[in-house]
Amino acid sequence: MAGDWTLSPHQSVGFLKAEKTAEAGAGGYRSRTEYLWMKVPSRYGLINITELVAEVVERSKIQDGLCYVGAMHITAGIYVNDAESGLLQDISAWIERLAPLRPDYRHHQTGEDNGDAHLKSYLTNHQTTVPITGGKFDFGTWQQIFYAEFDGRREKRILVKVTGLAF
Amino acid sequence: MAGDWTLSPHQSVGFLKAEKTAEAGAGGYRSRTEYLWMKVPSRYGLINITELVAEVVERSKIQDGLCYVGAMHITAGIYVNDAESGLLQDISAWIERLAPLRPDYRHHQTGEDNGDAHLKSYLTNHQTTVPITGGKFDFGTWQQIFYAEFDGRREKRILVKVTGLAF
Amino acid sequence: MAGDWTLSPHQSVGFLKAEKTAEAGAGGYRSRTEYLWMKVPSRYGLINITELVAEVVERSKIQDGLCYVGAMHITAGIYVNDAESGLLQDISAWIERLAPLRPDYRHHQTGEDNGDAHLKSYLTNHQTTVPITGGKFDFGTWQQIFYAEFDGRREKRILVKVTGLAF
Repeated sequence: MAGDWTLSPHQSVGFLKAEKTAEAGAGGYRSRTEYLWMKVPSRYGLINITELVAEVVERSKIQDGLCYVGAMHITAGIYVNDAESGLLQDISAWIERLAPLRPDYRHHQTGEDNGDAHLKSYLTNHQTTVPITGGKFDFGTWQQIFYAEFDGRREKRILVKVTGLAF
Repeated sequence: MAGDWTLSPHQSVGFLKAEKTAEAGAGGYRSRTEYLWMKVPSRYGLINITELVAEVVERSKIQDGLCYVGAMHITAGIYVNDAESGLLQDISAWIERLAPLRPDYRHHQTGEDNGDAHLKSYLTNHQTTVPITGGKFDFGTWQQIFYAEFDGRREKRILVKVTGLAF
Repeated sequence: MAGDWTLSPHQSVGFLKAEKTAEAGAGGYRSRTEYLWMKVPSRYGLINITELVAEVVERSKIQDGLCYVGAMHITAGIYVNDAESGLLQDISAWIERLAPLRPDYRHHQTGEDNGDAHLKSYLTNHQTTVPITGGKFDFGTWQQIFYAEFDGRREKRILVKVTGLAF
């Protein structure tokens, strides 16, 4: 079970749809919010969502600002790192070592079996912020945005909120 | 000692007061800053502060924006996860395993005994950002904001800064 | 090798230059972006960059807002904690214990030898946000901003973007 990871360096495996949920503005300042719906086919996954988030930024027309990206679940996370496929194996093995799947978490007394997923989320952080300059991610060469799924095989949402200046 | 955790899934144990420290605005864009004063009665604690932060957002009258929540100390943190009480036990035991209380940290040569608290803060991250839409946290069903105290029994502060559009 | 850490509690060792890359504004809302160029002389380093970031905030003239600070690399991170020198030793030893230098990471099949640096970055988080009030960091007494380098001896960049109100 613990080896059942979808490692997706370049494709947004499990992506269902993007849904615009809010838009606001005053003066040159704007905000746009979208939910990205995901259903990762395995229990665990590291999914490159860079292109999906870039499309939200483009639709926002915001040129300079901040882009919040956050999982709306307590068994998932967001991180920024390299998309090299061997590294995805290293990261998944390392997360499993620090926050292992185990039968005996107290949380399981509620009937759940995903105690490890909460710890993996804590380790990862459920959200990040991406700077936007000139209408694009202001990223270094190798930075990519990943959705880390720790209890998949069900519909989940990622919230993207872009705020800043459109001109 | 390491077992001395206040695990508070639903009440803001140790909350003393909220203090408004700044307010600013231009056009429809506004910012409001408050300090939440805490004194957790034990050395360690995981305290649900969701309601306290929601009250700051409400007082800000901001409808769409971002809410920064950060501990103002290097021995505490902020995280977002589930409020289930068994899970709080799992999280506290796991933090202690990864960043244990020990007598021999170099930092203790200064007379301190809280080297573990700094590492626990590093593991947790001292701050998070919460998206605000329609005047409310734009959260999934189970997301709650926690203050993680790793060196309590003294007055500490959490900074909440809400920025965005009021309309 | 794993002991080769530059621990710099008070000086920005390795700092090369600050480069303004973008500026924008509308109404009272402004944004300023600078890159801080670094070349840490050792493989690993914990470098206090508080003063460098404070100078960017000062140049932005922003009085109330948020300051994003992020490494533009996948082998580095940013964190906020105390500048005490024994603590820097504790933090570096602890990072090495949780995400050790090892020869056998899968990522090394690409010819790289820095698999541990990616995990150390994941543990640390590559970015943070600092609240700005009254033109200054709204920090507690001991909070300092650190650049965590995990694959140094080359030129790297830290992105600082200050957004908010100038008045």
